[in-house]
Amino acid sequence: MAQIHARRRARAQQKIAESDAGAALITSKPNVRYLSGLASSNVAILLPASGPGVLATDSRYAEAAERVCPDLQIVTERQVEPALAMLAAQLGCGTLGFEAQEMTVERHAALAGLPDGPALMVPLGYLVEDIRMIKDDAEIELLASACAITAKAFAAVLPDVRPDRTERDLAVLLERAMIDLGADGVAFDTIVASGPNGAIPHHSPGDRAFRPGDLITIDCGAQVGGYHADMTRTVALGEPAAWQREIYDLVAAAQLAGIRAAVPGADVDAVDASARDLIAAAGHGDHFGHGLGHGVGLEVHEAPLMGPGRTGKLVDRVPVTVEPGIYLPGKGGVRIEDTLVVRSAATRAGTAQAANEAAGAAEVLTTTTKELLVL
Amino acid sequence: MAQIHARRRARAQQKIAESDAGAALITSKPNVRYLSGLASSNVAILLPASGPGVLATDSRYAEAAERVCPDLQIVTERQVEPALAMLAAQLGCGTLGFEAQEMTVERHAALAGLPDGPALMVPLGYLVEDIRMIKDDAEIELLASACAITAKAFAAVLPDVRPDRTERDLAVLLERAMIDLGADGVAFDTIVASGPNGAIPHHSPGDRAFRPGDLITIDCGAQVGGYHADMTRTVALGEPAAWQREIYDLVAAAQLAGIRAAVPGADVDAVDASARDLIAAAGHGDHFGHGLGHGVGLEVHEAPLMGPGRTGKLVDRVPVTVEPGIYLPGKGGVRIEDTLVVRSAATRAGTAQAANEAAGAAEVLTTTTKELLVL
Repeated sequence: MAQIHARRRARAQQKIAESDAGAALITSKPNVRYLSGLASSNVAILLPASGPGVLATDSRYAEAAERVCPDLQIVTERQVEPALAMLAAQLGCGTLGFEAQEMTVERHAALAGLPDGPALMVPLGYLVEDIRMIKDDAEIELLASACAITAKAFAAVLPDVRPDRTERDLAVLLERAMIDLGADGVAFDTIVASGPNGAIPHHSPGDRAFRPGDLITIDCGAQVGGYHADMTRTVALGEPAAWQREIYDLVAAAQLAGIRAAVPGADVDAVDASARDLIAAAGHGDHFGHGLGHGVGLEVHEAPLMGPGRTGKLVDRVPVTVEPGIYLPGKGGVRIEDTLVVRSAATRAGTAQAANEAAGAAEVLTTTTKELLVL
Repeated sequence: MAQIHARRRARAQQKIAESDAGAALITSKPNVRYLSGLASSNVAILLPASGPGVLATDSRYAEAAERVCPDLQIVTERQVEPALAMLAAQLGCGTLGFEAQEMTVERHAALAGLPDGPALMVPLGYLVEDIRMIKDDAEIELLASACAITAKAFAAVLPDVRPDRTERDLAVLLERAMIDLGADGVAFDTIVASGPNGAIPHHSPGDRAFRPGDLITIDCGAQVGGYHADMTRTVALGEPAAWQREIYDLVAAAQLAGIRAAVPGADVDAVDASARDLIAAAGHGDHFGHGLGHGVGLEVHEAPLMGPGRTGKLVDRVPVTVEPGIYLPGKGGVRIEDTLVVRSAATRAGTAQAANEAAGAAEVLTTTTKELLVL
């Protein structure tokens, strides 16, 4: 893995050399983990345009850093950012690029005010995030593991969708099942929204017991090696009413349209529209208030965001979610979400789904059925 | 609960009225939760110096917001911060205070550049954090529940500290036990560090199986209603060697000294020194590289921080951790940590530990024994 991290740093250094900065101070934790392999709550990396990088962390993580990042110089300091900013000045790095999307106004003011700090600091932009967006094989493998665990755990708890269970019961069972199946943790707090609560897209599971006639939306994901799965299914407890079946079929059709549109070169807002237009045409435009999906990787929500007015294009090997929903206040809701990898014909050839053209070009990693499950 | 949140907002508004700002834009998630009860990933509050506050969140959380915050005006917007900054300008709030410790340089630049935004923005300081530091009864009750669950879960998994288990096995069992006992989640990723890994204060539990002769450090906590427990114990698998017993006894003595020093009016660096001096006097000053402890509440690490060079005084009803350690590279380590509430004689009289003077004035919430457990 140390070699993979060194390659990623080399790519970042190439982009730093092309930028206004002589060196970059990397402070975003997922970016640090991506470039070094180290997961720490107090860490930063100084990456000059050329030459070796320096990682600073405190004594709690120093030994782990030595082990995980053998080819980075390690500085053991509690105040990691001032230490690296002063080092950048000492090394004569010139203008220091910083991550304005992560650094707070307070921390920035502290660095800018250092008497021995860099003369000039400039926002680095989304330099590392842009590299991170396109995943290598090792990353897609971790993401696929996380998705496989998620689907297995989902299947394992389906028998517990019954009238003597509450939303919270099911969320606990699901999270436990993911851990038992080998997840390093959960990717985010599990959502279980039953009956009228299904109208709340991010409902916190509560003490409401399931009732016959409920639609139940379950949004969950496992985390493996730092990579986050994200999957939603809505199931029915007992035979669904006509309105429930109707919105389910509509969301399922919109979700499939979204997956088919998620091809290399597609504009992210066009992918969103491909699903949203179907929902709007059926009169439910006002009941789908969030974006169609988002990138997933070392963060559960990362670039690219796919929604109305968002800009950018999908490219090969970018994992995204596709998750349209319909939410009817006071009545209930449906959301269906997959994690999938945007694939060109060339990179899709090597995947397990190479021969399955049903879902379009993308490689769908969350393989739970999207037929409405009636339990 | 809505009344409690209204009282907290009134206290914050009083402090805003005394500040340079005409209104405050609250963007820190724990601060928003403290003032409104709403836990959301996309939320902010506009709190004028007087009059009703406004909470902005997106459609995923809008229904929850209406329910949880009946006496706040709710604005449903995806871009919550620009929406509230422009509203502040429309309402003629004048200078807008913002949380420079939370707001990124990028988000601040976006607000400062709004054509219809506030003319001036100033850092608000730690206005809400200062209020949050001193806990009310409802908060201490949630923290006590989280600590009680932590101690019970710890006891439940002790039989699994045996040679056929790995660090990861124990971490999974412990986290599951906390959930089964009613935790809403874990407060942080559980640390299990065995044998030489014990020298890494924040070791990630791995595949190392326990071996007779190991010291095993277990750092864990449950989360209840948003409040975080934090407890560490080091146990021995098999009869400990003389050096192990020696550093254990030293850390235990230092930890007790730290608890006894944690009284209202104490300087935080003096509390740290009361424990650190004992460790340094025994020649292990270089083997205790982190601070003595930190506040706990809606964040697992919050004010006050207790370490060398930190400033501030403890006051009544402030929960903190006291967690000295000794880490011997390549050999192993010991850490002992409690979550406790700093108490004056007056507020301590009502607690369960009113009659127990052994640990000094503080109310210790993590009641697991600190005798060295030999398993």
